[in-house]
Amino acid sequence: MKRLVFVAVVTMAAGLSSAQAETLPLPDGVISLATPQGAAMLFGAEANTDYFPLSIHFTTQDNPAYCGPATIAMVLNALNVPRPASDMTLGLGMFDQNNIFTTAAEAVKPASSIVNPPYGMTIDEFGGVLAAHNLEVEVVHAADSDLETFRKTAIAQLEDNDHFILVNYLRKSIGQESGGHISPLGAYDQDTDRFLILDVTRYKYPPIWVEAAALFDAMNTTDSANGGKTRGYVSVSR
Amino acid sequence: MKRLVFVAVVTMAAGLSSAQAETLPLPDGVISLATPQGAAMLFGAEANTDYFPLSIHFTTQDNPAYCGPATIAMVLNALNVPRPASDMTLGLGMFDQNNIFTTAAEAVKPASSIVNPPYGMTIDEFGGVLAAHNLEVEVVHAADSDLETFRKTAIAQLEDNDHFILVNYLRKSIGQESGGHISPLGAYDQDTDRFLILDVTRYKYPPIWVEAAALFDAMNTTDSANGGKTRGYVSVSR
Ligand SMILES: [Ca+2]
Ligand SMILES: [Ca+2]
Ligand SMILES: [Ca+2]
Ligand SMILES: [Ca+2]
Repeated sequence: MKRLVFVAVVTMAAGLSSAQAETLPLPDGVISLATPQGAAMLFGAEANTDYFPLSIHFTTQDNPAYCGPATIAMVLNALNVPRPASDMTLGLGMFDQNNIFTTAAEAVKPASSIVNPPYGMTIDEFGGVLAAHNLEVEVVHAADSDLETFRKTAIAQLEDNDHFILVNYLRKSIGQESGGHISPLGAYDQDTDRFLILDVTRYKYPPIWVEAAALFDAMNTTDSANGGKTRGYVSVSR
Repeated sequence: MKRLVFVAVVTMAAGLSSAQAETLPLPDGVISLATPQGAAMLFGAEANTDYFPLSIHFTTQDNPAYCGPATIAMVLNALNVPRPASDMTLGLGMFDQNNIFTTAAEAVKPASSIVNPPYGMTIDEFGGVLAAHNLEVEVVHAADSDLETFRKTAIAQLEDNDHFILVNYLRKSIGQESGGHISPLGAYDQDTDRFLILDVTRYKYPPIWVEAAALFDAMNTTDSANGGKTRGYVSVSR
């Protein structure tokens, strides 16, 4: 067997020896999906239907304020909402963080306003942009819910083929750096009572398993950009 | 419990009722990962170590000629090669389909040449660009290998923590539209003798499980842009 072999010296540098060197250290209490334990939890998850349609559209937010648009692009693709076609996609379609801003979406929250202070989207603006895509959307502020209701709702929607559930939470409440954040949920593991967050800030953190109570507490925090209302969760279906 | 509810009429249009309407129909003989059968195969896959580091960096090729750059970006991130930082990633880093073209990579295959005829990269150019990132790379043309060798090599590398394996194959040979293509392998299922291709043309096809023999035959096809040499597979490690 003939082979063409390229061999280059591997550059070893101090501080680069850890396989996780490139993302931020994870706080105690959360489990990366990209570990044997985290992978086993996905395989043994009691609700993981949504993991597949979401993970095949997993994406990285385009800029530090775009966790909302990245999450919306993933979910519109996962829902098989008819996608904008372009020459770059061979006349087929794919939602991305630019083309989600249709005229109707811009009327709710202009893309330009997301990258200016106070940066990002509130949970209500996020729900409004989703609804502008002719979807059925329910925004729940954590202060208007409770852990049991959230857990039950999220499990049911992670199991079914119709709904996706998206969370808006304060990172520092679960020990991460540091502000308000939005990402989709991908699965629930009953044995550990943890949800899988498919974190769209992929340069910062891997997907993590977080305890339901810790996630609810992180959602039950006030958003100064939203009149002091709490963060929470959003259900969406076609 | 108070909730803020957005409800919009779901637009139903002829031809949009199928959940797969937005990608091309899959040929007989391959199985989408985003089906209950495909998901069960991942959970029961005898080699799936590589699925996790790759899937958390899964991406869509930026243009119709960029299956190679998209695959390279995924693999460099999965290997935790030190990543280029930018303001758009908060001073952290992430490989994408632009910044993989370092000076050393451009010297092997300029980005501009990929989007001009004959379009794309040959397997040798692809291996060369990977090697330009100080990686250990082995390019194997299918004509210089055989099904048994490919299967054994790929399984070992899908199981370990060091190597990734990438395939260059002719789509029409497995019934897809239509030309030469490059994507990473994510897993192997022994019970069905199938490999999982994490297809980076995400607007066109979902990840698929394809029989080892069919994949090998699709690699064992001549590439007119590469002096008539066959396509094949590439192993990479740090
Ligand atoms: Ca479980
Ligand atoms: Ca669901
Ligand atoms: Ca199996
Ligand atoms: Ca491996």
